[in-house]
Amino acid sequence: MAGNSFGRILRLTSYGESHGPGLGGVLDGCPAGLPLSEEDLQRELDLRKPGQGATATKRKESDTVRILSGVFQGLTTGTPIAFHIANEDQRSRDYGNLAQVFRPGHADWGFFKKFHGIRDYRGGGRSSGRETIGRVAAGAVAAKLLAEMGLSILTYTKSIGSVEIDMDRFDKDEIPNNPVYMPDAKAAQEAERFLQECMEKQDSSGGMIECIISGMPAGIGETVFEKLDANLAKAMFSIGAVKGFEIGSGFQAAKMFGSENNDAFCTDENGAVAKKTNHAGGILGGMSDGSPIVFRTAIKPTPSIARTQ
Amino acid sequence: MAGNSFGRILRLTSYGESHGPGLGGVLDGCPAGLPLSEEDLQRELDLRKPGQGATATKRKESDTVRILSGVFQGLTTGTPIAFHIANEDQRSRDYGNLAQVFRPGHADWGFFKKFHGIRDYRGGGRSSGRETIGRVAAGAVAAKLLAEMGLSILTYTKSIGSVEIDMDRFDKDEIPNNPVYMPDAKAAQEAERFLQECMEKQDSSGGMIECIISGMPAGIGETVFEKLDANLAKAMFSIGAVKGFEIGSGFQAAKMFGSENNDAFCTDENGAVAKKTNHAGGILGGMSDGSPIVFRTAIKPTPSIARTQ
Amino acid sequence: MAGNSFGRILRLTSYGESHGPGLGGVLDGCPAGLPLSEEDLQRELDLRKPGQGATATKRKESDTVRILSGVFQGLTTGTPIAFHIANEDQRSRDYGNLAQVFRPGHADWGFFKKFHGIRDYRGGGRSSGRETIGRVAAGAVAAKLLAEMGLSILTYTKSIGSVEIDMDRFDKDEIPNNPVYMPDAKAAQEAERFLQECMEKQDSSGGMIECIISGMPAGIGETVFEKLDANLAKAMFSIGAVKGFEIGSGFQAAKMFGSENNDAFCTDENGAVAKKTNHAGGILGGMSDGSPIVFRTAIKPTPSIARTQ
Amino acid sequence: MAGNSFGRILRLTSYGESHGPGLGGVLDGCPAGLPLSEEDLQRELDLRKPGQGATATKRKESDTVRILSGVFQGLTTGTPIAFHIANEDQRSRDYGNLAQVFRPGHADWGFFKKFHGIRDYRGGGRSSGRETIGRVAAGAVAAKLLAEMGLSILTYTKSIGSVEIDMDRFDKDEIPNNPVYMPDAKAAQEAERFLQECMEKQDSSGGMIECIISGMPAGIGETVFEKLDANLAKAMFSIGAVKGFEIGSGFQAAKMFGSENNDAFCTDENGAVAKKTNHAGGILGGMSDGSPIVFRTAIKPTPSIARTQ
Repeated sequence: MAGNSFGRILRLTSYGESHGPGLGGVLDGCPAGLPLSEEDLQRELDLRKPGQGATATKRKESDTVRILSGVFQGLTTGTPIAFHIANEDQRSRDYGNLAQVFRPGHADWGFFKKFHGIRDYRGGGRSSGRETIGRVAAGAVAAKLLAEMGLSILTYTKSIGSVEIDMDRFDKDEIPNNPVYMPDAKAAQEAERFLQECMEKQDSSGGMIECIISGMPAGIGETVFEKLDANLAKAMFSIGAVKGFEIGSGFQAAKMFGSENNDAFCTDENGAVAKKTNHAGGILGGMSDGSPIVFRTAIKPTPSIARTQ
Repeated sequence: MAGNSFGRILRLTSYGESHGPGLGGVLDGCPAGLPLSEEDLQRELDLRKPGQGATATKRKESDTVRILSGVFQGLTTGTPIAFHIANEDQRSRDYGNLAQVFRPGHADWGFFKKFHGIRDYRGGGRSSGRETIGRVAAGAVAAKLLAEMGLSILTYTKSIGSVEIDMDRFDKDEIPNNPVYMPDAKAAQEAERFLQECMEKQDSSGGMIECIISGMPAGIGETVFEKLDANLAKAMFSIGAVKGFEIGSGFQAAKMFGSENNDAFCTDENGAVAKKTNHAGGILGGMSDGSPIVFRTAIKPTPSIARTQ
Repeated sequence: MAGNSFGRILRLTSYGESHGPGLGGVLDGCPAGLPLSEEDLQRELDLRKPGQGATATKRKESDTVRILSGVFQGLTTGTPIAFHIANEDQRSRDYGNLAQVFRPGHADWGFFKKFHGIRDYRGGGRSSGRETIGRVAAGAVAAKLLAEMGLSILTYTKSIGSVEIDMDRFDKDEIPNNPVYMPDAKAAQEAERFLQECMEKQDSSGGMIECIISGMPAGIGETVFEKLDANLAKAMFSIGAVKGFEIGSGFQAAKMFGSENNDAFCTDENGAVAKKTNHAGGILGGMSDGSPIVFRTAIKPTPSIARTQ
Repeated sequence: MAGNSFGRILRLTSYGESHGPGLGGVLDGCPAGLPLSEEDLQRELDLRKPGQGATATKRKESDTVRILSGVFQGLTTGTPIAFHIANEDQRSRDYGNLAQVFRPGHADWGFFKKFHGIRDYRGGGRSSGRETIGRVAAGAVAAKLLAEMGLSILTYTKSIGSVEIDMDRFDKDEIPNNPVYMPDAKAAQEAERFLQECMEKQDSSGGMIECIISGMPAGIGETVFEKLDANLAKAMFSIGAVKGFEIGSGFQAAKMFGSENNDAFCTDENGAVAKKTNHAGGILGGMSDGSPIVFRTAIKPTPSIARTQ
């Protein structure tokens, strides 16, 4: 059954396997008049690209994006924006043995059962980490749209294994300076060292991502099944390797008292309604409440390791 | 925008406010031939109903369900199953003051902003806990369908505040015996005592729910945006008061090594493919892997308290 | 598979059989602040109700509607509007023989095959003409919404059998004055006489409906699969007994030259863009063009007749 | 709003403009194991390609398709099948004057209003006849799937202007032999002559398409809003230039008696349920009835003509 689309007003449909001709997507519903170029997408795809730092995967390719429709004279036209990224690193590796093996922690077994024995066993196929290319390219367009509305999104690594950032050292500008995208130079160094040790043991490590969305007006999101946080949860959990999602005080809320967790309303310096705290993480009753939206995502350790238990 | 439906093949559309005429829903896509009666729905609605135990909300009503369509001669007919539960406890309380107040931790403020000042301020309106009535009634039908396919679902309270169940004392049969639905009689007693203290302080507490789905065959779920875990995450987060969702090792996975978290494949006594452990929580690459599906949901403390910070 | 919903932003989900407890629906996505009462729905349901005139079906009931949610203090609240109409005329007729019979021109046979022998054989079940009750009640809300935006919808009978209205005698005010809803008193009389003859022969007749939507601004509708005319075609064809749909010059366009069928653009007295003619029926390239939308629907003769070939 | 997808289980999302880099689509939901090659798509695309015959459009290009994902070792893998067809004929024509002109019978004006003045004015842009490339390529896959289930689809031109095929001369094998795809050699000759005259007058002509689907089992289709005929109507009306759709006796049914239009059930030589006639066109109550599905589509004359009224 069709399952490669996300969104209702703005909808991404993506395609592509790690070892086929390429990956891409169609972004449908983008309004006309947004300035857009291949560079806008390429910038984000370059950030996605592995290979920065000694501890990353070995795959090296340019991931050059091409926009195939929906842009005319530098502006979106309101028609679908299709984009394609050719795979370059399709080395003639012998995948023969993978055809008979189900790797632990991978989708192989599910694919085998779902499709009655038929599967593309080269690399992860459709379940490869390369699948996120479609999300990143479309996300670049979405981020431009949101920026025009005054929203900005900040995402960074909160922890790798037991190495966690220190919020007292939080420095947004530090994020692009280190290969683990941490807003804390000291923690980043420790994390790099820790990952180096993992690699020496032929092992991998889990980690946590935090995201802060600023500039969101109050009242966005539907109130029952299409809650804003429900859709964020689905979006995050649709990314491979995600095992947990929490918003605001998250799992900590399960241990809190109501008197601790409630965010009292107040008026800010401009007389506007505001909240004294943000345990809600910016969403109440499925709708944004005007505070920054703050959520965390737990990522399991890469399963592709030489070491076994 | 429409946001009160969930599901693609089997789809629930629900309606109703806490202080209107009633609540209900339409369950569309149920196959013909399933034995179904109002008692099947009533049983689950009775479990949902608050009022068991001293620590619950004061609202008391029968929540009697009526099936309005889709069942003929004791069997579903394949047409939509509509059901309605009348509200009985619409006491002529003076909600006048609530019309001007945004309660902390509630959806009031978002509703006000979303609908430009218009809202049903009586109780929680559509965001009341009573909204789950539609989910429970439809869920009763879904559970019957799944039972016919050999699936069973077990849900219980894992923790309330700092009181957590002891897995060594896990006793499934204990769940319905205590008002906090814990599978551990001792923890249940402690939790009841803890909630009693909360009430005396006019406070409330968060908690955690755990769910185990057994009998799920491998290969169910789509592989990208419609991952099985992504849809479970959305379903759980669409319930009011949920602040976190995790599957398998969940947030713990963020601190684990790949060699710890990977579940090695083996063959069971029947020669079938199985996993030695279940850190994945029964889902790999968005598809079921044949192991039990295990997930946890963090519930924030009830915001409706007399105590403030 | 779920198939009882229509619409994306404003979505109706309907339910109910001709001989069950009742029929109704849930209208989701209606914005807050629309004045709405049960009378608004009842007015349209009364027009739908058969029984005016000697040539109509025998079923007589009040079709009293009750709104169950989504309206507070006379205004919609933005939450789902549920409504229910109880069946009253469930006479203890003996349907026993219908259980074994597939009536020609009815859905009986399809239901039997679709649901493996299980079906509600009383009257038409879900495929009864009474199913339109849900559409009419929801349509009453939609029409109020559209009226607030300056749109009005005029629908009437264009022909019954070979009796067609004469456009030279077109009189909008005549429509509610005759039992066949024709905007031409003379044609209405002929049609009544013709139907009387049909009844005497225990036969029935087909007919044609025409609809004119006025006040539609240009540029509404999507340009490929969600064309405005494509959605109108689906909406009309989803009504039982519809066998044809055409817009503007419709099937006549198949015999026309481009020079005849093209509508030249001009400017109206206010300097606004307009069309000299309206062969397009108000829709070009899937989008409204600012002219009235004009379409026709062919209705097959009622299959429930005593006479056979 | 997103509007470039069609289908629920098997879903096409298409993209592309007449004068951009190319056109294509993503077909999501195709099951694994279907033998599929680029030749399968190319064969249908070649049939779509204009240029056969003197009376067709002047645009000449190869329309070579490339499959970008979803096929491995000659079989579909169950993942999305993306395909792309590059535009070749993007001559450096001066479209400058089209930027200020709204051509009659085209989507120009709607696009202008929908997107606040922004539009791709080169050729028809997204509303060009070339948009059907995505439908044809995806349709080739769908037709292969249906063929495996025993369904076949036959489509031909029924009329051009006043030249209609004579059913007594119906010869299926004749269809590919003439440039107007008529199953009647004599009518085809007349139609060609008629079109030649149209061209000499710098005019164009409408026409009618008929389609027969054979091998459809009974009971397919949903019974209310997702009726099989409602979805066929939407599909056909989503194609540019379609102004009418009818099934079975269609608009003729509006003039018929019930005793004429009803199809009596009988048993065929194998004792299976069958219908003596097929006025229903193979669909009753929104579900297939086991007879061939027969429908007609009215196509308006090409609006791109030099001649005006």
